[in-house]
Amino acid sequence: MKKDTRLILAIDETDADKAVSIAESVTGSIDAIKINWPLVLSAGPEMITRLSRISDVICDFKVADIPNTVKLIVENSVSRGACAVIVHAFPGSDSMRMAVDTAASMGASIYAVTEMSHPGGMEFTAPNAEALARVGVECGAKGFIAPATRPDRIAAIRAIIGDREILSPGVGAQGGSAASAIRAGADYVIAGRAIYNAEDPRAAAEAISEDARSGL
Amino acid sequence: MKKDTRLILAIDETDADKAVSIAESVTGSIDAIKINWPLVLSAGPEMITRLSRISDVICDFKVADIPNTVKLIVENSVSRGACAVIVHAFPGSDSMRMAVDTAASMGASIYAVTEMSHPGGMEFTAPNAEALARVGVECGAKGFIAPATRPDRIAAIRAIIGDREILSPGVGAQGGSAASAIRAGADYVIAGRAIYNAEDPRAAAEAISEDARSGL
Repeated sequence: MKKDTRLILAIDETDADKAVSIAESVTGSIDAIKINWPLVLSAGPEMITRLSRISDVICDFKVADIPNTVKLIVENSVSRGACAVIVHAFPGSDSMRMAVDTAASMGASIYAVTEMSHPGGMEFTAPNAEALARVGVECGAKGFIAPATRPDRIAAIRAIIGDREILSPGVGAQGGSAASAIRAGADYVIAGRAIYNAEDPRAAAEAISEDARSGL
Repeated sequence: MKKDTRLILAIDETDADKAVSIAESVTGSIDAIKINWPLVLSAGPEMITRLSRISDVICDFKVADIPNTVKLIVENSVSRGACAVIVHAFPGSDSMRMAVDTAASMGASIYAVTEMSHPGGMEFTAPNAEALARVGVECGAKGFIAPATRPDRIAAIRAIIGDREILSPGVGAQGGSAASAIRAGADYVIAGRAIYNAEDPRAAAEAISEDARSGL
């Protein structure tokens, strides 16, 4: 994944053709596309491959399973064209290590979720966020997810993870500022509807990317 | 899901035709089939529908996301034919409640994962298992997952969840005893390879089911 635009496009559409047309509308103006299970469930796993012909693809699968199942999910995602898979740290070190080793053996990367930004994330993920980040660091995750809506949390995770990467969702529709997220320590910001619901998606992507890079 | 055999078949095969032929080999001798993401990633989401024509299907997707994504995953799985979806309690009450409400509105059920049985499960899930079970109870989960390999944990969860159901994996290949799991409070046991790698899968299923029912 290159670091040109500092922008990752989250496609939360579940229609196959809409997803592809959104991706095509911003090629060159983003560094990667992030997709999740709803698209796979509605349009099939071949969407990973279709989108990977347009851009780098990150499978935001929030994998949270035993090591052998983690291995199968990462293997299949990467063999279909994903450059990275997002996994949870809370299933512990053996699952995380299996994710990282499987991805690495195929030239792909793992990003770890520590703290989740929705209200329920305060119940179990937030109190464990720093220990969860250490699991990711010890097991060799390429980077971490931390919310643009809470730059203090980006800074807190940055303090633990050294020079590993931070991807920061919540920019745009959810109110996070791209510049503030990057300034707090994020490497990439993630935006979705703010881009593909805009009248001119490419212009919207370029504006967010410019804002992000102003925080460097 | 009926409670005739007390046995759920976990299909961990990722080949579509093998999965279907395994399911067909034991119809009537099991109460449901449990599948996971690797089968969807390799054979497509239409596997949920194909298998649901043979048996009740539980999607063991260990969903661990924000409420809106949980909603989309549960909706799609149930509309494809699943009678139940397995979700993590770790993302908190709002995600759990969304899973339960979405499934209920479609006549399906949610089972919650509290503690995971692999070694890494001791790091973050075990210390929180009882609080996680309470999230499932408060939000209306139909039941919970607890390992047959550790009947003491089945009994501990049973003490918190009242008369909700417990599904207990780890029987057979992983060493758990069906009778002990049921005796400790499980409603169903889950077995996979011990059934479909047997020379006579139906006989193997019936033996496990008989053992399970002996624990009632």
